[in-house]
Amino acid sequence: MRLHGYFRSSAAFRVRIALNLKGLQAEHVYHHLRHNAQKAPEFLKLNPHGLVPAFETGDGAVLTQSLAIIEWLDETFPDPPLRPGDATRRAKILSFALAVACDIHPVQNLRVLNRLRSLGQDDAGVQAWAAWVNRDGLAACETLAMRESGPFLFGTQPTLADLCLVPQLYNARRFKVDVSAFPRLLEAEAAALALPAFTAAQPQNQPDFEP
Amino acid sequence: MRLHGYFRSSAAFRVRIALNLKGLQAEHVYHHLRHNAQKAPEFLKLNPHGLVPAFETGDGAVLTQSLAIIEWLDETFPDPPLRPGDATRRAKILSFALAVACDIHPVQNLRVLNRLRSLGQDDAGVQAWAAWVNRDGLAACETLAMRESGPFLFGTQPTLADLCLVPQLYNARRFKVDVSAFPRLLEAEAAALALPAFTAAQPQNQPDFEP
Repeated sequence: MRLHGYFRSSAAFRVRIALNLKGLQAEHVYHHLRHNAQKAPEFLKLNPHGLVPAFETGDGAVLTQSLAIIEWLDETFPDPPLRPGDATRRAKILSFALAVACDIHPVQNLRVLNRLRSLGQDDAGVQAWAAWVNRDGLAACETLAMRESGPFLFGTQPTLADLCLVPQLYNARRFKVDVSAFPRLLEAEAAALALPAFTAAQPQNQPDFEP
Repeated sequence: MRLHGYFRSSAAFRVRIALNLKGLQAEHVYHHLRHNAQKAPEFLKLNPHGLVPAFETGDGAVLTQSLAIIEWLDETFPDPPLRPGDATRRAKILSFALAVACDIHPVQNLRVLNRLRSLGQDDAGVQAWAAWVNRDGLAACETLAMRESGPFLFGTQPTLADLCLVPQLYNARRFKVDVSAFPRLLEAEAAALALPAFTAAQPQNQPDFEP
């Protein structure tokens, strides 16, 4: 198995956590997004969208989109399950993950922020946009999370929801969002960051890390 | 079961198609997004994100996020399956769906376009943004789709991928994207629109439709 990522990519961060939780080894290939390595012809053959992560399953298949890669890992290596429970509980966990993966992350990723710059937004304007997306989205996530018991987002074990939350909080702080407004999310983050599976996946612990 | 939607919401459109394909009846409640009905206190209790769709399962649970709602429908009413096949095929179908649901749709939805207006973009600027997001994303989707046999995106039956494609092409045309550049996507769309499950779910066939 081979994961194509970048230290700061939240989406690759999610997949790294999933691999670690399941005790799986994968070869990691790092592509420097700020140098546009994800737009190189060789990489576009793997993922025509020009986005990380891309994941080679080892039997010839290439998967893209972090949540699809994680679903594949979860079906192929079911222990521990990342979406446990009945259909409703499974859907609620997925719903939280999608609230991050659809409605926060892609609206503040590098591609969008670069586009805003090309429309004349300066550093402050770009950061205000990213902070708005994170603050609004995480506030709603906090309300959803308050409905579930902790310490993780959905009970006593980490799920797909936690895999999405932890990288997003990393982003939110980078964009100077006051995350103290989200105590339930911080409780879940603290539970997650007590686990080596999460800390080993953090950006600062990747070999391509740049401060 | 009760679906909270809006005629023009692509995400609600996806859920309507899923209900129809499975032959399910749900009560439909329409919320006028341009009048900000999704921000009303009563609706925010259902979905703190203030977005449609929201879905009441009938046993007290409320689900948000169209792909989570559709996964719940698919697990609860498995016939016909919307993500058939082995783990790799299921992941590829999900990957296509997420390419639309994460990387195209939320970057051009009403919330983002309104924000661009507040930053001084005029009608032409807002449309150029939405067209960029659709054109770029659909071009990559076309490349992915070329790797699979038709007439649907993944073979001879509609899947979750088609449920995401058809509403997105509706959006792309609204933003004046030249979709003739995507013949494989148009082939899949034509196969879908030959089915009443898709046509009955179209915006112009909803009771809250406005030209």
